[in-house]
Amino acid sequence: MRQKRFILAQEDIPKQWYNIQADMPNQAPPMLDPVTKKPVTVEDLAKLFTLEASRQELNTTDRWIDIPEKVWELYTYYRSTPLVRAYGLEEALGTPAHIYFKNESVSPVGSHKLNSAIPQAYYCKEEGVTNVTTETGAGQWGTALSYAAKVFGIEAAVYQVKITFEQKPYRRAIMQTFGAQVPPSPSMSTRAGKDILTKYPNHKGSLGTAISEAVELARMTPNCKYALGSTMSHVTLHQTIIGLEAEKQMEIAGEYPDIVIGCFGGGSNFGGISFPFMRHNFSGERHTRFIAAEPASCPKFTRGEYHYDFGDEAGYTPLIPMFTLGHSFRPANIHAGGLRYHGSGLIPTQLYKDGFIEAVDINQTESFSAGIRFAESEGIIPAPESCHAIAAAIREAERCRETGEEKVILFNLSGHGLIDVPSYEQYLAGDLVDANLSNESIKANLDEINKQIVL
Amino acid sequence: MRQKRFILAQEDIPKQWYNIQADMPNQAPPMLDPVTKKPVTVEDLAKLFTLEASRQELNTTDRWIDIPEKVWELYTYYRSTPLVRAYGLEEALGTPAHIYFKNESVSPVGSHKLNSAIPQAYYCKEEGVTNVTTETGAGQWGTALSYAAKVFGIEAAVYQVKITFEQKPYRRAIMQTFGAQVPPSPSMSTRAGKDILTKYPNHKGSLGTAISEAVELARMTPNCKYALGSTMSHVTLHQTIIGLEAEKQMEIAGEYPDIVIGCFGGGSNFGGISFPFMRHNFSGERHTRFIAAEPASCPKFTRGEYHYDFGDEAGYTPLIPMFTLGHSFRPANIHAGGLRYHGSGLIPTQLYKDGFIEAVDINQTESFSAGIRFAESEGIIPAPESCHAIAAAIREAERCRETGEEKVILFNLSGHGLIDVPSYEQYLAGDLVDANLSNESIKANLDEINKQIVL
Repeated sequence: MRQKRFILAQEDIPKQWYNIQADMPNQAPPMLDPVTKKPVTVEDLAKLFTLEASRQELNTTDRWIDIPEKVWELYTYYRSTPLVRAYGLEEALGTPAHIYFKNESVSPVGSHKLNSAIPQAYYCKEEGVTNVTTETGAGQWGTALSYAAKVFGIEAAVYQVKITFEQKPYRRAIMQTFGAQVPPSPSMSTRAGKDILTKYPNHKGSLGTAISEAVELARMTPNCKYALGSTMSHVTLHQTIIGLEAEKQMEIAGEYPDIVIGCFGGGSNFGGISFPFMRHNFSGERHTRFIAAEPASCPKFTRGEYHYDFGDEAGYTPLIPMFTLGHSFRPANIHAGGLRYHGSGLIPTQLYKDGFIEAVDINQTESFSAGIRFAESEGIIPAPESCHAIAAAIREAERCRETGEEKVILFNLSGHGLIDVPSYEQYLAGDLVDANLSNESIKANLDEINKQIVL
Repeated sequence: MRQKRFILAQEDIPKQWYNIQADMPNQAPPMLDPVTKKPVTVEDLAKLFTLEASRQELNTTDRWIDIPEKVWELYTYYRSTPLVRAYGLEEALGTPAHIYFKNESVSPVGSHKLNSAIPQAYYCKEEGVTNVTTETGAGQWGTALSYAAKVFGIEAAVYQVKITFEQKPYRRAIMQTFGAQVPPSPSMSTRAGKDILTKYPNHKGSLGTAISEAVELARMTPNCKYALGSTMSHVTLHQTIIGLEAEKQMEIAGEYPDIVIGCFGGGSNFGGISFPFMRHNFSGERHTRFIAAEPASCPKFTRGEYHYDFGDEAGYTPLIPMFTLGHSFRPANIHAGGLRYHGSGLIPTQLYKDGFIEAVDINQTESFSAGIRFAESEGIIPAPESCHAIAAAIREAERCRETGEEKVILFNLSGHGLIDVPSYEQYLAGDLVDANLSNESIKANLDEINKQIVL
């Protein structure tokens, strides 16, 4: 009988994360302080993040970083996640390709986000931090941090974008069940929130505003740190547990991926599945293709520009070298909330420049069509974000059908979509349309950054 | 490092179900045709169910029933499910007890229901059936059957109780994503539905009515069968995969349960985890306690009566020997919709009579309090039904804390509660109250059956 799922024994779960910064052929240029224009230091970052996260962020020398024992133990609550051979999808597509996916949706919170929430909450605890703040759009990250904070006895405040707060009450209820405070953003609890509400009393919020509120609360509150769920290098470091497990599991399956695919928001899920495999490309030992699947409505790689830019809308963060659509870019309101981010993280940016990463853009309707094919053949309703990775995998598998090649395709199923089914309902009812993003509007945003940010 | 999760290798997933009817010290009295009062035959049952399910229902001789190869392969899509040592919960309770749970919530549809939906859809396919009908209250069973029907290319119609249809749109959307038709019940598509709507134009439905509609549609439609998600012996047979895996996994953990606990609606989830262990009690080799955790608002074991009664409100089913509150009993509208059933299945009924099963009743608020303790310590938000099993496990674990006994407690986590978080929200807001079920109202219902059903 053919083997469907590959699961590691507990003792084989990796005990270290992989820090790709130690192996990259070219280091990325540094993040800069927006005022002094000097490279930011660990001390600068540690004003906002935990000290350990700040150290990891700028660590370009240590290839392997130990996973703290307590974090590893909590990983064993749900890891290893299964590596699954998608026989059902292969048959539905009639492709000779071998399709595998890493199923991160079986984590207790339903997504890969927990892989970074646990260590970030742990470092808070270790450093005597009693409160942690963050923002959440789609809700996956807020859910993960709420759970991790509860485990370590830390108070969490999750600013949820008001429109989501109202439209997705299930997410809010999950976070509250884990004991988090979930103020809708904009709120009256911060200056940033108050200013916006005074100007626009009915403002429904944005991720940019929610970040500003969470950052402000962290700065104003004693013993409080801010935690971020993607984009930054330390978050991606934590996510490499996905790819490290997958590497061992592929070995058990007796295969090695020709193509590795992840959806791309800020880059931590993509980097998590990709980077452990990519190191064998650096050495020339392998020639795997790595494909970042981004939404057509937020195409920073395929249509953006390489530039120093802010990570948030309000301009609170350091300047980061990124492929960007401009920090004031407002993506269409697609259901893959986790991919609605204007820029790429510092590491994938450099790797894209250096030709190690390819990117494709996927329309929302193509992504849901792919999600439904996957649900019907593999039984799992994928998160709207993950649907982008599935769509890219299907494109490659269909190419194999034409050429007859038995390529090995691996993608990351970053989360399930059980909390997102209303979006499937809209798709099935024909109510979803694809945003038509004009070159002019992209150019207008980019011109603005070029004017605004001069180094 | 202590081991948290125990997962079987694919080749160790059981290849047969366990048919407890072959081992029971006393057989249950037969189901009776309500008109002739004669025992029902396989032919009688096969008018409504598939032939193979009907055979399994009345099979009292074969201890082991082969799992068809295709069904087994689909089991490997998500099985074995993990057996998990609940260290987090043990620590939170400060108990010396060793608590284990079988995590059925990792199935792609989020519950154990798939274990029976797959074989039932498979038998439909094998027997040339093209359409299948069922009803769903909470939605777990309807979701599982929708998925299984899609896999085998069978059309599914799931009558969803109208109040749930309106209040739980996520469940409906999941079923529709899997391609099922989901008419709200009462509907205009059946005589039973039309009659009720004519009489009460705003009727919000009940499980009894939905069963009547599904049965009627199955009878009126060529090549159509009806599939049930609990209560019946063939459903419980399929669910024994849970306990059979758990037995192997406990052996790997080097332990054997002193107490096995399942929540109890019709009995298939409880029987699934219990029966494989119970056979060692029959032989006298073991003295495990088996606890059925039922809701205080629907206490058929603890406050019902042993009697022949109908399985549905409308009186379409055979007469079944059961502990019952009366088939016209209307349980309070608690959130554990899967436990709102008036009677116990034929097998657990006999085993309860014979002293192999104990029962406890759990109030709704105690169940949610237990669910939140579990979510906070183990990270998984449990289904409201599963909360009852958790509450019973906590009671036993706290008893161990008092006595200092290191008992081994195993319970079935039948599903996750991500689609049920609004009920947690209500609990946290203090909006849930416990139904106060009077002896008089129970007696009135039972008097009615005693009058109505005379053998």
